[in-house]
Amino acid sequence: MASDGHSESTPTNGVVQSLLTDLYEVTMAYSYWKNGKQNCHAIFDVFFRKNPFEGEFTIFAGLGEVLKLLQNLKYTKSDIEYLKSILPTDTEEDFFNYLAESDGRGIKLYSVEEGTVVFPKEPLLRVEGPLPIVQLLETPILNLVNYASLVTTNAARFRIAAGEDKKLLEFGLRRAQGPDGGLSASKYCYAGGFDGTSNVLAGKLFDIPVSGTHAHSYIMTYTGLSDLVLRTLPLISKPEETVDFVTVCEKWKQKVFCCLTISNGQANEGEFAAFIAYSMSFPERFLALLDTYDVLKSGLPNFCAVALALNELGYKAIGIRIDSGDLAYLSNEIRAGFQLISKEFDVPWFADLTIVASNDIDEETLLSLNQQGHSIDTYGIGTHLVTCRKQPSLGVVYKLVQVDGLARIKLSHDVAKVTIPGQKLLCRLFGKDGHALLDLMLKGEEQIPEVNQRVLCRHPFEESKRANVVPAQVEVLQKLFFEDGKVCHPLPSLKDIKERVQTSLKSLRNDHKRALNPTPYKVSVSNNLYQFLHDLWLDNAPIGELS
Amino acid sequence: MASDGHSESTPTNGVVQSLLTDLYEVTMAYSYWKNGKQNCHAIFDVFFRKNPFEGEFTIFAGLGEVLKLLQNLKYTKSDIEYLKSILPTDTEEDFFNYLAESDGRGIKLYSVEEGTVVFPKEPLLRVEGPLPIVQLLETPILNLVNYASLVTTNAARFRIAAGEDKKLLEFGLRRAQGPDGGLSASKYCYAGGFDGTSNVLAGKLFDIPVSGTHAHSYIMTYTGLSDLVLRTLPLISKPEETVDFVTVCEKWKQKVFCCLTISNGQANEGEFAAFIAYSMSFPERFLALLDTYDVLKSGLPNFCAVALALNELGYKAIGIRIDSGDLAYLSNEIRAGFQLISKEFDVPWFADLTIVASNDIDEETLLSLNQQGHSIDTYGIGTHLVTCRKQPSLGVVYKLVQVDGLARIKLSHDVAKVTIPGQKLLCRLFGKDGHALLDLMLKGEEQIPEVNQRVLCRHPFEESKRANVVPAQVEVLQKLFFEDGKVCHPLPSLKDIKERVQTSLKSLRNDHKRALNPTPYKVSVSNNLYQFLHDLWLDNAPIGELS
Repeated sequence: MASDGHSESTPTNGVVQSLLTDLYEVTMAYSYWKNGKQNCHAIFDVFFRKNPFEGEFTIFAGLGEVLKLLQNLKYTKSDIEYLKSILPTDTEEDFFNYLAESDGRGIKLYSVEEGTVVFPKEPLLRVEGPLPIVQLLETPILNLVNYASLVTTNAARFRIAAGEDKKLLEFGLRRAQGPDGGLSASKYCYAGGFDGTSNVLAGKLFDIPVSGTHAHSYIMTYTGLSDLVLRTLPLISKPEETVDFVTVCEKWKQKVFCCLTISNGQANEGEFAAFIAYSMSFPERFLALLDTYDVLKSGLPNFCAVALALNELGYKAIGIRIDSGDLAYLSNEIRAGFQLISKEFDVPWFADLTIVASNDIDEETLLSLNQQGHSIDTYGIGTHLVTCRKQPSLGVVYKLVQVDGLARIKLSHDVAKVTIPGQKLLCRLFGKDGHALLDLMLKGEEQIPEVNQRVLCRHPFEESKRANVVPAQVEVLQKLFFEDGKVCHPLPSLKDIKERVQTSLKSLRNDHKRALNPTPYKVSVSNNLYQFLHDLWLDNAPIGELS
Repeated sequence: MASDGHSESTPTNGVVQSLLTDLYEVTMAYSYWKNGKQNCHAIFDVFFRKNPFEGEFTIFAGLGEVLKLLQNLKYTKSDIEYLKSILPTDTEEDFFNYLAESDGRGIKLYSVEEGTVVFPKEPLLRVEGPLPIVQLLETPILNLVNYASLVTTNAARFRIAAGEDKKLLEFGLRRAQGPDGGLSASKYCYAGGFDGTSNVLAGKLFDIPVSGTHAHSYIMTYTGLSDLVLRTLPLISKPEETVDFVTVCEKWKQKVFCCLTISNGQANEGEFAAFIAYSMSFPERFLALLDTYDVLKSGLPNFCAVALALNELGYKAIGIRIDSGDLAYLSNEIRAGFQLISKEFDVPWFADLTIVASNDIDEETLLSLNQQGHSIDTYGIGTHLVTCRKQPSLGVVYKLVQVDGLARIKLSHDVAKVTIPGQKLLCRLFGKDGHALLDLMLKGEEQIPEVNQRVLCRHPFEESKRANVVPAQVEVLQKLFFEDGKVCHPLPSLKDIKERVQTSLKSLRNDHKRALNPTPYKVSVSNNLYQFLHDLWLDNAPIGELS
């Protein structure tokens, strides 16, 4: 698979290299090394502070790529040479030797499973290892988790807004933030709940269903029937027998135009020819774009004529796509046209032809379409989905929580920015009805809460917010995924991740998931962790002086 | 250079492959091929309809990567196999042979130079060649131009907002939309007017200055002076003579704390130790992050103590960085502190230490800081810059304008979406003072306007908007860059592009560039093109029927 730049164990994208990091990670690594801290055992937590898109949940993604980064961690000769050229000339040679010999063997990575619903302040990843090396990993890990989680969450939100019965296709490659933005969007949108993509490379690399038919440009290359060089198509039942398909189309055109009360001058002849040409190339996959000229006066009658001609030969057309105008109104008018034709010509399946809509759709458009009533079966969604226009970055951070067994806390005037120190366990407690009740962080050495036993769960910062919880089920969310230079936990396939997203979301109460004013989900700490956190906080906070 | 995934003629990113396209480009290509259109000569224009960020200009970028795409256009055996697996089984074998033999040799690419200021409706690229092949190029070309132009424009706007005398550093890698989003952001932000990046790989691949020092985590690994394992530093004038640097720092700490009226309990001891350790690793590049604990009560005095100790040994510190709080207020207080210390201890350069600010800065923050008054010298900018939060996609489109010598027009109810048909020339007309007056599109066969000769320039759609223009200088904006499978015009270096951005922006009047209510720049058509466009429009628009 090397020719595709893709395999199970190397990063999907060749630019994911050890040098894809911020310079300050390198200068810090040098200073740690120089000051005798190269063997300090550090623990960093990866988390975010606020759910994106004004929502109350986030889907974690990007772990697979992080693991590939760890597996391939090394500094090449040319990397070292470049680093020498930018660091001061008195930087010690031994540091470069240290880097040249570094790899991922000292790293332990604990992580939530990809595709799990997660919440602010929770350690999604816990990275443990020699201080300089885990420091160097900060930037690439954040880069790989940030967008992956953001766009997966976005896709999951679009899925919720569209409803389970609609088909969702990702069409964002052209508007994505670069080639990789496009490629990872296709992958993670599929994980988040989309059914397919227009992106052929994503289809090839990740085994995602791909779809697509034609654009306006295709229609515009035809000016009339005289442009057609092929005229015949075989009957589906008797492939050896061909008929003059263009004549069949012309016959149906007269019938359809009469039925839909369209005059000949209204419909575009070039579009009619283009539909015929396209349907002859893909007689079993005929889906036509209706809005090059006029959806209802040209696109719809031209399509129906060709689709009925195909039907006469035994082929079933798939449907149509609209890419402009009032999608609710147009889709309803088109459906009415299909129903009329279905009855008039006694072709039952014609009433249920697929209607695809694809014009600059965002989450709000989907919600509004549902309210208005529409006849759309499939959405093609691009820009808003892949660029996450509503909020184009998640703000994942990588914070030091422990060095050589001693917990570290980062204080801030803003309580939301105070870190939760030390090595922690993360559990999800479920109620009897299978819904998640809350998440609980414990100190690393604490016992996991037992099923049907009462456990005190506290708000990490607000003293009076406490609850006794009796879980019917307890799930430990973080697992050890990487150790001794190797992935040590089976990695799910993209389809498994996709399934996990839906299972995980289903366990969440609907009020956490609704678009308007969702209820925040509770992330709590154990009493032990609460005490530990607050003791450390007081130890580290200076006493103010007023005079 | 292959080991870096980077060379002059292959795409920077390995995922830029022929299959990085939408499936409908492939199905259209097949249908063109099957319907005898494989040798049709098509022309597509690449343009956008609206300047981004509520502005009135855009910087064109991405050409270099588009040319690499064209140079490397080919379908591998595994690509063809994949396509066979997703297209209908009756797809003709000869089509796959046609694809397997395809390359960029039939393509001609005309383009505006990378780094040029451009405007809505202007053809940035003109792609000519066999219809199926130029159709297949639609998606990857849009992908490569869209984000590149958007982020270059964003960077240019940040540069205008910050002013010419400030240093701008791009810090966006961790928040970018994937690894490539980060890497191209670093490249194009440099082109757009930034001075450097934190991204080491971008530094290596594109020869961009890199910068960075340390993060909060570095500070937090130290709890006090007892953590220091090194104590000595050589004198800069006598490298053979070392002094106990920690003791010197402690001495200066007392003096500084007295001068700044700080009590010992207020400043954090771990931070003091961390500054000492870091400065001993980089004695000639000491720049400290002040806001791990308290900027004015801890970070500032600790920094000044260490910087003055360095000064005693002959080293000049560089300055400080703040990453939270009120940047205007804090930077002024810090500057005042530096000035006080400078006077008190007679260290003149201390007053001018560099102040770097870097907390979630956007264009509006820069404008507001200028209004408030501040003492910041350098901005480190991440999320808003690289994700283009204000508008994360440019909306570049690829439209058919001619087939086999016959112009094509795409009509729309929305006049802004009507395309300008046919092969066109694009010129910029300049006035005597060197400022650009307007841009003019002509029909392909028209004469370029002559200097000092009057030329009628018309609004493309509004009949009454016309002006006679006498240009003092005329620049043809589109040049032939690719022909016969080869780049045929010298490609500028990244530094040349960076220079062109500034030259091009300087030729634009300030009112087009201001942040609030900028004046739209005029993009006009020649009288010939106007007539041609409107004749074709009437020929193609159906006559409505009311009854």
